[in-house]
Amino acid sequence: MKNSLGRELPDAEMKELKYQPYQSTEIGNPVISWVAPKVRVSTGDDKVIFSVDEVIKDVLQDGMTISFHHHFREGDFVFNLVMDRIIKLGYKDLTLAPSSLTNVMNDKVIEAIKAGTVTNITTSGMRGELGEQVSHGLLKNPVIFRSHGNRARSIENGNIKIDVAFLGVPNADRLGNANGMEVESAFGSMGYALIDAKYANKVVLLTDTIVDYPNTPASIEQTQVDYVVKVDRVGDPDRIGSGATRFTKDPKELKIARMVNDVITHSPYFKQDFSFQTGTGGVALAVTKFLGESMKKAGITAAFTCGGTTSPIVDLLEAGLIKKVMDVQDFDKGAASSMKSNPDQAEIDTDFNVNVLTGSNGEIRGAVGGHQDAGTAKMTIISAPLTRGRIATVVHSVNSVSTPGASIDVLVTEVGIAINPARQDLIDAFSKVPSLPIVSIEELQKRAEATVGKPAPVEYTDRVVGLVEYRDGSLIDAIKQVKD
Amino acid sequence: MKNSLGRELPDAEMKELKYQPYQSTEIGNPVISWVAPKVRVSTGDDKVIFSVDEVIKDVLQDGMTISFHHHFREGDFVFNLVMDRIIKLGYKDLTLAPSSLTNVMNDKVIEAIKAGTVTNITTSGMRGELGEQVSHGLLKNPVIFRSHGNRARSIENGNIKIDVAFLGVPNADRLGNANGMEVESAFGSMGYALIDAKYANKVVLLTDTIVDYPNTPASIEQTQVDYVVKVDRVGDPDRIGSGATRFTKDPKELKIARMVNDVITHSPYFKQDFSFQTGTGGVALAVTKFLGESMKKAGITAAFTCGGTTSPIVDLLEAGLIKKVMDVQDFDKGAASSMKSNPDQAEIDTDFNVNVLTGSNGEIRGAVGGHQDAGTAKMTIISAPLTRGRIATVVHSVNSVSTPGASIDVLVTEVGIAINPARQDLIDAFSKVPSLPIVSIEELQKRAEATVGKPAPVEYTDRVVGLVEYRDGSLIDAIKQVKD
Repeated sequence: MKNSLGRELPDAEMKELKYQPYQSTEIGNPVISWVAPKVRVSTGDDKVIFSVDEVIKDVLQDGMTISFHHHFREGDFVFNLVMDRIIKLGYKDLTLAPSSLTNVMNDKVIEAIKAGTVTNITTSGMRGELGEQVSHGLLKNPVIFRSHGNRARSIENGNIKIDVAFLGVPNADRLGNANGMEVESAFGSMGYALIDAKYANKVVLLTDTIVDYPNTPASIEQTQVDYVVKVDRVGDPDRIGSGATRFTKDPKELKIARMVNDVITHSPYFKQDFSFQTGTGGVALAVTKFLGESMKKAGITAAFTCGGTTSPIVDLLEAGLIKKVMDVQDFDKGAASSMKSNPDQAEIDTDFNVNVLTGSNGEIRGAVGGHQDAGTAKMTIISAPLTRGRIATVVHSVNSVSTPGASIDVLVTEVGIAINPARQDLIDAFSKVPSLPIVSIEELQKRAEATVGKPAPVEYTDRVVGLVEYRDGSLIDAIKQVKD
Repeated sequence: MKNSLGRELPDAEMKELKYQPYQSTEIGNPVISWVAPKVRVSTGDDKVIFSVDEVIKDVLQDGMTISFHHHFREGDFVFNLVMDRIIKLGYKDLTLAPSSLTNVMNDKVIEAIKAGTVTNITTSGMRGELGEQVSHGLLKNPVIFRSHGNRARSIENGNIKIDVAFLGVPNADRLGNANGMEVESAFGSMGYALIDAKYANKVVLLTDTIVDYPNTPASIEQTQVDYVVKVDRVGDPDRIGSGATRFTKDPKELKIARMVNDVITHSPYFKQDFSFQTGTGGVALAVTKFLGESMKKAGITAAFTCGGTTSPIVDLLEAGLIKKVMDVQDFDKGAASSMKSNPDQAEIDTDFNVNVLTGSNGEIRGAVGGHQDAGTAKMTIISAPLTRGRIATVVHSVNSVSTPGASIDVLVTEVGIAINPARQDLIDAFSKVPSLPIVSIEELQKRAEATVGKPAPVEYTDRVVGLVEYRDGSLIDAIKQVKD
């Protein structure tokens, strides 16, 4: 069957996993029942233990679902440490449900799959060797891709039932109160791990820094925690972020950034106490800077920003231009480049559908991240150069849909902006702005194709290797195995 | 049947409410399943509404369970406002499940009971006219008394299923983020209301102060909230606390306070990074002050305190003698006297069982509060004068058991201290301290009786008007109707 975007969905998987086809970005106001974990009553017990093996043997059984977070990003030591022991101890048929998978985890995930330790994965994304191998049929069952918001929702309503969460934390006290701050391996907000701590039946913290009780503020609370495992190092501080924030000097990127800023400042939403979310790529960082200048000039301050927090956002906060920052993850040390892989491979089609998950060769090499979730803003802007190398950014039909076109309002490219025809209000607003040449998205697609030519279609087998959920849990697309 | 304390438990209520008899203070490490609420998905909706009636009609049905908190104490306007409308709108057979009931709520509760609006109550306690009338048979079903900790536990495991929580808050934004700080009617920590916000199927905030979105820190979060009702005033700031902290000048109280301090400082627990909880009565405030002086002299600091926070505790925090205060409710303006009713009527028997709930005439006039919960400390000290007026504090058998003797270690009176025979270690420790004359509790009982005589026994009917739970949900005692 096909969903409302015309994407072909696999009947077998739809039936087995009881999927509804994606219908609409309007998710309405359903009343849903949350689930709740089992908890072991404890009375001030010291939970510190020094053996990862001992904890694993205590809590883990074949067939269970285990989770990790990716806040340590490419500096993570916890995932490989734990997964290595799980493989060595001979566990089978586990479902791996991390908030996302970073490159540093790839080898160990591949090893776990080959050993039969992991047979199911749900994640925001995967890249590199892992994405490539999964695209070519490595994993027994399809990977289920979920946005960060959808993952939290799926845990809350029981679609993902986490048996054991292994959560690396920069610090914890002996009873399990933990936060992401104040020590060497700090990563700031622990946003993605909080839902695991709340809903997993067993919560295992791993930390290199045991602090005095009571550790406050406690992002993860002692009542949620079963074990605190003391390890040598949870991560490499230098790789938790990824180097200094890069402010782009590329003239094309700067041009796009200025146009994005013009879109924002000429939209009906640029007014006192507006809110915005910008990304972490070079363009996004420049947009944040330009936007700050425009706000200052116009005498406007923002009520809040949300999403990942970058240095330019902190600058605006400190300048009093943003009142509050709602923080789910931090790119403190300017880890901008770690998320840049998304914009770098973003693809948008003439229906405004966006793909941030699969490359032009059909292989998985990205992450849904918060893309779907952010798309529900009153105005969502995608910025991209028309082409990258020999690859068109604007295409007839995206390789796979991550975010439906109905939630994308404006595409900004260096040759002009395309506005979703559903947004006549924005077309009217921007028609008067000289710096914003409006073109149809079909026109942009044609110009891109004229530049780089028409690529040969990717060849797939019939086997499904990935299922892409929309944030409401419906199925928005399926990813097939790439022919060798 | 009788429980392990020898208290007679009513068979009919035991069976109907599926109670286990109280067995032991050792609750072990059971694995329990928490429950979870139903939530209505919302997407940044403005939840502000100006009509209490409209909200009630939207969410309330006959037979439901409704909750309130008591953080505004005697300054509360919210309870009477909401309950009045519920009565007027003709609702029946509701279960009232507040964190506690303060005197200012009494008349409205009585009215609700007489109207058939409220037929069940679970609370930490009740006082004054309400306690008196309930003791004489006003309410259709027995009141279930639960400690603050047990209430939270009962909500978590589904023993109390809150359909609608009506929570007064000093401030909230239009989406429902709320905290207890920074405005006129602030009461500090919202400890008791957090569990309602988390587990109630519908959460209705009432506030007089709508603040900018996003309101941070959010003790109650927008995802938990269904309505924000704007009302004129949530409370009378002057009566939220109850006047300046009274430091006792009574020589007997000061003597007892010094002895309590000597018990603490000569115990094996008085060492670097110890923790303690003191109450809010005159003696407790003096103990806190004396303890601070002893800590300073000994060069010892406490890792934390918990429980209700008083001015002397804040003084110690500011002096660096306490590292952290874990805060569930604040007596900011020195609301000491509002909790003093407990110590004033505390009764302890020769098995060390404590009664903080019923008076010497058998009528309900107190609250379990955190008494049972605090009793699980490594050392629990009760302080009391031997007699109060013509009433003995130490008796053969308490009128009703709130806290089992197994969790009480030391009784301090002006004529000497009695140590629970189960604590030979403390008997050994305190035998060497000249300022701590050790006497048997039987001796104290005899001296009290010699002073005030033997009271005539209270006469009861066979009807049960109150059930007292232990913190694990077992039944520790039953309270019968007092004969008119």
